[in-house]
Amino acid sequence: MNNSPIGIFDSGVGGLTVMREVMEQLPYENLIYFGDTARIPYGSRSEQTIKKYAHQCATLLKNKDVKTIVVACNTASSIALDDLQKNFDIPVIGVIDPGARSASTVTKNGHIGVIGTTATINSGAYQSKIMDYKHDAEVIGIPCPLFVSIIEEGWEYSNVAELTAEKYLTELFEHDIDTLVLGCTHYPILRYTIKKVVGPYVKLVNPAFETAKDLKQLLIEKNLLNESYELPKYEYYVSDAPERFRRIGGNFLKKEINNLSEIAIDNL
Amino acid sequence: MNNSPIGIFDSGVGGLTVMREVMEQLPYENLIYFGDTARIPYGSRSEQTIKKYAHQCATLLKNKDVKTIVVACNTASSIALDDLQKNFDIPVIGVIDPGARSASTVTKNGHIGVIGTTATINSGAYQSKIMDYKHDAEVIGIPCPLFVSIIEEGWEYSNVAELTAEKYLTELFEHDIDTLVLGCTHYPILRYTIKKVVGPYVKLVNPAFETAKDLKQLLIEKNLLNESYELPKYEYYVSDAPERFRRIGGNFLKKEINNLSEIAIDNL
Repeated sequence: MNNSPIGIFDSGVGGLTVMREVMEQLPYENLIYFGDTARIPYGSRSEQTIKKYAHQCATLLKNKDVKTIVVACNTASSIALDDLQKNFDIPVIGVIDPGARSASTVTKNGHIGVIGTTATINSGAYQSKIMDYKHDAEVIGIPCPLFVSIIEEGWEYSNVAELTAEKYLTELFEHDIDTLVLGCTHYPILRYTIKKVVGPYVKLVNPAFETAKDLKQLLIEKNLLNESYELPKYEYYVSDAPERFRRIGGNFLKKEINNLSEIAIDNL
Repeated sequence: MNNSPIGIFDSGVGGLTVMREVMEQLPYENLIYFGDTARIPYGSRSEQTIKKYAHQCATLLKNKDVKTIVVACNTASSIALDDLQKNFDIPVIGVIDPGARSASTVTKNGHIGVIGTTATINSGAYQSKIMDYKHDAEVIGIPCPLFVSIIEEGWEYSNVAELTAEKYLTELFEHDIDTLVLGCTHYPILRYTIKKVVGPYVKLVNPAFETAKDLKQLLIEKNLLNESYELPKYEYYVSDAPERFRRIGGNFLKKEINNLSEIAIDNL
């Protein structure tokens, strides 16, 4: 079982920022990534639909004998994680809890901003999870739906990106935040522009990094680490348009995407 | 049969700009709109997937006894219209041909720009259709994927919109265009900002308007006009998130959306 792969899924390419952190922090683990590109974006869909899609993604990975599942999608983590943990007999972790825990530790003044898709922010998942860790925190959530399109266009360093970030983030200054959670898997790509807008005194929390740390801890505790120390295998599956995934995904993963196949998801 | 409704489908809310033109030009027709919000956006999906989705949308409308189908989605029109016309026994019209024909008539110098989603522009559908009507035209296609997100955010008059339009459209000036086709159903919402950027000498062609004109002509020719002169019935169906559709759609239709239901599309 320890040689079995770890399964990671997301609604598209975004989760590759999580995969990248997992590759760095767990360099001997075999990984299978599934991007549900036929049904992206999850962020604007209903709760019921997101739960159904997440269940299908997890089933697809389970059928490939993964030893644990990482829900790399913030939207799916915020809405469907509990259901997945109930319905699957392997460990399932999401990105919300690691990101929220880190934010509650990093902040000095207790004023924390969270940015993400409309669905993630409206679900209140980060907000309530942060309050679990730090009862007196003030958490301000701002949906930034344009960021994903800007990043997928490759415009992360453009004046459009900067102006958009200013438009979304100005409100955070009024709340005197000292910590900002990048609550969407795409956002780490935009972190330099975001940092420029929020200034040097606001610390950015990257849930992708924190999730990989938690995953490592989980594998150690459950005695599931792959200790073969062989070169790991990486496989990628998408439900549509593999060439677009390969092209855009390279910017997320910072390495070439090989072993990529298209796979049906509707009927799982 | 003449009292039967006209069916209109799109991948989401965008096609409401077409529905609006149909309401104005054909005020006695009953209309059924289907927005495939569970699977939007079509613009970044593969050809095969777009054809499958379009066939399912048309089947859904056919099952509701429509007398004709309008493919309001530019992406689906450019990729799936021929298939639909072959496979359904009622008239099916798209938005590409009316838009292309109008552009070829409007232009004086033969230099025509077309903007749309990546899939629409890459399909070359507008470009080749315009050349059919005007062999010596020079047609420049520019994909503007950010426009849809900007419009759905309600930012059509913002400085982000203007800067984005400048970034996308500057290339068109080098080609000295005098006509610009708004080749995505969302874009009429952004027309004032686009007009500001391209200047007063470039004429904008709105395929939604031209399609409604063609539809009227088609109904007259086929003897299918509804001549009951009763107040028409409007029904709306979406495959996901009806509340979001109602909220954003109002801005497209410029009237309230009633008679809205959610309906499954996957298994058609």
